Amino acid sequence: MPFLEDMKVGLRRELGTFTFTAEAIKIFAREFDPQPFHLDEEAGRNSLFGGLVASGWHVASVCMKLIVADGVRARQEVEARGEEFGTGGPSPGFRDLRWLKPVFAGDTLTYSGEIVSVRATASRPGWGIVQSKNVAVNQRGEEVYSFIGSVFLPQRSDRN
Amino acid sequence: MPFLEDMKVGLRRELGTFTFTAEAIKIFAREFDPQPFHLDEEAGRNSLFGGLVASGWHVASVCMKLIVADGVRARQEVEARGEEFGTGGPSPGFRDLRWLKPVFAGDTLTYSGEIVSVRATASRPGWGIVQSKNVAVNQRGEEVYSFIGSVFLPQRSDRN
Repeated sequence: MPFLEDMKVGLRRELGTFTFTAEAIKIFAREFDPQPFHLDEEAGRNSLFGGLVASGWHVASVCMKLIVADGVRARQEVEARGEEFGTGGPSPGFRDLRWLKPVFAGDTLTYSGEIVSVRATASRPGWGIVQSKNVAVNQRGEEVYSFIGSVFLPQRSDRN
Repeated sequence: MPFLEDMKVGLRRELGTFTFTAEAIKIFAREFDPQPFHLDEEAGRNSLFGGLVASGWHVASVCMKLIVADGVRARQEVEARGEEFGTGGPSPGFRDLRWLKPVFAGDTLTYSGEIVSVRATASRPGWGIVQSKNVAVNQRGEEVYSFIGSVFLPQRSDRN
């Protein structure tokens, strides 16, 4: 893995967890999203969120961090078995990104990805596109973030 | 501004510029997107990008930073004229986010937003939704990033 042939709809990977401390929320917000409810507890309490909340772009960027780390882990697992690792191409994008609920200071999100479609590409022989739904769930079991990402993967059959 | 009535399709605001230095690209990538072509010039040259490139989430987060700063500026302009500033509600989301071309180290992006639709909301009397297409263009005149964002704005007619 990951070659196209190894990817099956329903296959799921835990991507990891991340705790959004007040400090991490404010550091990101000061640089990229300096709205009062991302910068200050009191302003957060007085906002419609009712508390200090993370920028949605922070929640999304942490997901990217975990996806990249999971890719490194996946490669190590495969190489530890002495198998070849199919290196994917660039992402052709994503769709349906949703910030479903606020992420409050102190919340721990668990991110995971599940394959929702696998298909060979007519335009790029020897390759295919895999779509995964990536989701973050907080410690109360609420889904707070999701998007459907795509990645190009090589077909093993074309290489051997 | 911004009340719903002040928003017209085609109205455009310059959001500002940002230069993606190699240092800024690497700092963001180390924390949120540690792929080789975001971390190292040599790895970038050997990638299909042909150079060190910024994470797409970095390009998006900088856009958010400039949108927030523009909101502060818009408020100051209105208040300097002694007029009331309509405070918007939370964003109901965005769609059609596109990373159209790579952003290389040293590129300067100019971000702007243009209103593409304005409508009253049946479900929230006294309010409306404004959609803007936000775009980033590099110093070569190439569009590299865009998305359509939405914001709730109050109607002036309901307040006076």
